[in-house]
Amino acid sequence: MRLLFIGDIIGKPGRRAIELLLPKIIKERNIDFVIANGENSAGGNGITKDVAYDLFNLGVNVITMGNHTWDKKEIFDFIDGEPKLIRPANYPVGTPGRGWGIFTLPNGKKIAVLNYCGRVFMDNLDCPFQSVGRVLEQLKGNCDYVFVDFHGEATSEKVAFGWHLAGRASVVVGTHTHVQTADERILPGGTAYITDVGMTGPRDSVIGVKKELVLKKFITSLPVRFETAAGTLQFCAVITELAEKGKAADIERINLTIEP
Amino acid sequence: MRLLFIGDIIGKPGRRAIELLLPKIIKERNIDFVIANGENSAGGNGITKDVAYDLFNLGVNVITMGNHTWDKKEIFDFIDGEPKLIRPANYPVGTPGRGWGIFTLPNGKKIAVLNYCGRVFMDNLDCPFQSVGRVLEQLKGNCDYVFVDFHGEATSEKVAFGWHLAGRASVVVGTHTHVQTADERILPGGTAYITDVGMTGPRDSVIGVKKELVLKKFITSLPVRFETAAGTLQFCAVITELAEKGKAADIERINLTIEP
Amino acid sequence: MRLLFIGDIIGKPGRRAIELLLPKIIKERNIDFVIANGENSAGGNGITKDVAYDLFNLGVNVITMGNHTWDKKEIFDFIDGEPKLIRPANYPVGTPGRGWGIFTLPNGKKIAVLNYCGRVFMDNLDCPFQSVGRVLEQLKGNCDYVFVDFHGEATSEKVAFGWHLAGRASVVVGTHTHVQTADERILPGGTAYITDVGMTGPRDSVIGVKKELVLKKFITSLPVRFETAAGTLQFCAVITELAEKGKAADIERINLTIEP
Amino acid sequence: MRLLFIGDIIGKPGRRAIELLLPKIIKERNIDFVIANGENSAGGNGITKDVAYDLFNLGVNVITMGNHTWDKKEIFDFIDGEPKLIRPANYPVGTPGRGWGIFTLPNGKKIAVLNYCGRVFMDNLDCPFQSVGRVLEQLKGNCDYVFVDFHGEATSEKVAFGWHLAGRASVVVGTHTHVQTADERILPGGTAYITDVGMTGPRDSVIGVKKELVLKKFITSLPVRFETAAGTLQFCAVITELAEKGKAADIERINLTIEP
Ligand SMILES: [Fe+2]
Ligand SMILES: [Fe+2]
Ligand SMILES: [Fe+2]
Ligand SMILES: [Fe+2]
Ligand SMILES: [Fe+2]
Ligand SMILES: [Fe+2]
Ligand SMILES: [Fe+2]
Ligand SMILES: [Fe+2]
Repeated sequence: MRLLFIGDIIGKPGRRAIELLLPKIIKERNIDFVIANGENSAGGNGITKDVAYDLFNLGVNVITMGNHTWDKKEIFDFIDGEPKLIRPANYPVGTPGRGWGIFTLPNGKKIAVLNYCGRVFMDNLDCPFQSVGRVLEQLKGNCDYVFVDFHGEATSEKVAFGWHLAGRASVVVGTHTHVQTADERILPGGTAYITDVGMTGPRDSVIGVKKELVLKKFITSLPVRFETAAGTLQFCAVITELAEKGKAADIERINLTIEP
Repeated sequence: MRLLFIGDIIGKPGRRAIELLLPKIIKERNIDFVIANGENSAGGNGITKDVAYDLFNLGVNVITMGNHTWDKKEIFDFIDGEPKLIRPANYPVGTPGRGWGIFTLPNGKKIAVLNYCGRVFMDNLDCPFQSVGRVLEQLKGNCDYVFVDFHGEATSEKVAFGWHLAGRASVVVGTHTHVQTADERILPGGTAYITDVGMTGPRDSVIGVKKELVLKKFITSLPVRFETAAGTLQFCAVITELAEKGKAADIERINLTIEP
Repeated sequence: MRLLFIGDIIGKPGRRAIELLLPKIIKERNIDFVIANGENSAGGNGITKDVAYDLFNLGVNVITMGNHTWDKKEIFDFIDGEPKLIRPANYPVGTPGRGWGIFTLPNGKKIAVLNYCGRVFMDNLDCPFQSVGRVLEQLKGNCDYVFVDFHGEATSEKVAFGWHLAGRASVVVGTHTHVQTADERILPGGTAYITDVGMTGPRDSVIGVKKELVLKKFITSLPVRFETAAGTLQFCAVITELAEKGKAADIERINLTIEP
Repeated sequence: MRLLFIGDIIGKPGRRAIELLLPKIIKERNIDFVIANGENSAGGNGITKDVAYDLFNLGVNVITMGNHTWDKKEIFDFIDGEPKLIRPANYPVGTPGRGWGIFTLPNGKKIAVLNYCGRVFMDNLDCPFQSVGRVLEQLKGNCDYVFVDFHGEATSEKVAFGWHLAGRASVVVGTHTHVQTADERILPGGTAYITDVGMTGPRDSVIGVKKELVLKKFITSLPVRFETAAGTLQFCAVITELAEKGKAADIERINLTIEP
């Protein structure tokens, strides 16, 4: 089974990149299952029902989220009814939506998809290290593979989370920094790992935002309203090959550019 | 002219990697000038005079630093007398050492080497965006190339700094996260850029530290004394090709592993 | 000369407290000059021209600001033309408005009013410790008294700033936390000091905001839109007595409640 | 029943202030029970067994802690055997020591003493708002009064925590900023509240540390080794009067200075 995971999709440019490249990649690379981080897929922040369904229609099987999960208020209207939308599992008990779900792969095997937010330089949530241990206990016997999107800022926390799950999860990918890292590898125990998959959206930008606006902010320290950039698109993803006994056999980085 | 920049060298394992690989790389890849980030080169934090001279003897021409510059107190005894050691330029006026220096390449051309610390999620220093503008003014007419090591945490600040210098510096490399990014490119105007070069030190670690210790810290929230890890070494660097008119023609990532 | 400084005025409830109490206090306590922090005076964030003029009409002579200076965009239209509005002096060179001004007291003496933002747990600005030293140099011989509103979060930075100016400023008051501290005193050298003056606005709130909304935010970690609270008003201020040679002779806390 | 709570005791100067003033205050103010924050009582950071017993011998009945709980390693040797030492309750399950304890007052009534750390601008721990709700459930029927030391940085979080427990705890006091606030009051429902009790230690300092060292740190941005200050002592505390039905009838601030 070959799994494609697409990093943070940024607004309309990100969806355009999906539209242009995803069907082609699924076909050419024999992809069996697609997961994508959608926390910035609607206008650069959050997600709407329409955007989620667009992504599902384009071939995404499961959407994971992050610290921008709740930025579009309408998510509260549909998250409870949409099991293919996974928000960080370390929000407190009682939070709308689900922190993980179990899905069936084309070969009939089951894969659990989990989403976590880091805490270093980020919001105060429940401990992801403690929480994931409890969820893995519950998952025992209920699935064949475990996929985790760890949405974090600090490399120390992300790399540590990878080691925390080495031999316990099939795949651990990082998201949130919007810059792809070059440290993909199979950790001991058969866990495919990368610190950050990078983002899918406008390349000539500051992590998706018009560069002039971000520069103005850094240079003046004055408030600036951010807007999603335009121009050349980049598509950042990883392909992992799932093997026997819940292990991953391979991880490959994808980093494509295309004109919109 | 071919320039090699080596990312954060971590303690004894990092120096061992330099010893094993640097002379070979200089020769095989026709390197003309070597810059290395040494902020973690002594015992994982800071630098000592002996360590600095070891690195110079192994072929490093200039050492840049970062937020760990002052961790080994003896630096105050030798930094003022060592022009090949560059600390972040955005420390306040009156700080020991130099924030930039001008060096002569083998072909007689002059290269300015600058070091900056980011501020997002880091210490309170002077604005690097404002400061670098003033230094570039001073450098006009005094050098042929400008090389900047931007030592930062947040991808937004690092990418923005790259755009800030696009067409004004020859090379802008990021350091500090200890994880190599896969976004190397030549920005418009001929500036070679990468968000993070990654670290040179023990690979099976959490950014250089023994993984068991970092995991204990994240899981328990109790204080843990960190120690540099051992085992397989990684060597992270970039090679840039300097061209006419202060531009860079090419940037290539290096990511090697070797047994100690 | 008796100076009244009023802590962060919060929206309409804060202005109502000013309206109800300020004229009375000026008269009964023989106040000669009134300074007020207005960073939250318009709807809980920022300031507008109308609100500024309302405050001036109610007896405020000078308004200081803080990290919320720019929250209402119209400030960019009038700040350059209004010398009685002082924004933090440690914004970069070229920022609209003024970081300090010199004003004439009823007895003909001159008082400089400065505003600074702290950096610990706050935005990245220029170093207030370095900046204030340079401004004090410029002020030498141009004024009789120096008043500083240090707008900061961390007690360590605020207390340190007080000691930094002990014997060099007449008055150093802290703002921003919206909770009055009980550490008012005359520091050696004749500098009146308090870590935080507290806020003027709705008392039964979380630092001005409806308590139910802030509690929802802390309990759920979900985004919540904040609104200014209503009900019983509190008026937080200090009265300082200016003496000979630029010194302060006395500092007294004011903490009144009144029904709207 | 009259309860005395003493704010963060700072090293030897803090213990000297306790020695000079506590027995006298207990007698003159008819104190029935004494709780003190001891997170800085040994050399400015952490606590040792000897220091804890000194405090118990001087009249302290229960010691609460904070973010510096673990700074002296020997605490791991005695915390499990010392029920009168209470560390923050929102460390993860399995942390040594206790987050709360039930103690008997001289009149035979039972008082629960809880300690929490805030998370805003502080370490990543479990949610104190969620945790305290669960502990209060467990305490139902097992005690007559509930006392909470909330050790936090941000006024918003501390004030919100007070409202969270209004009518559910007898007393909520804040600690950690080392500066006493002037907002003591009885919240609706009979909960005595203050945002910060302030520290007990050397007055002419920056929150306990030699002011010259902290100033050097802020001005130079270089590392500085902190030392506890000397000179005039301050003693910061609150006296609360416990009434019927778990309520507090009164809260009074104590802020004394004495020569060592
Ligand atoms: Fe994102
Ligand atoms: Fe994110
Ligand atoms: Fe480093
Ligand atoms: Fe660093
Ligand atoms: Fe404010
Ligand atoms: Fe503020
Ligand atoms: Fe503390
Ligand atoms: Fe403390």
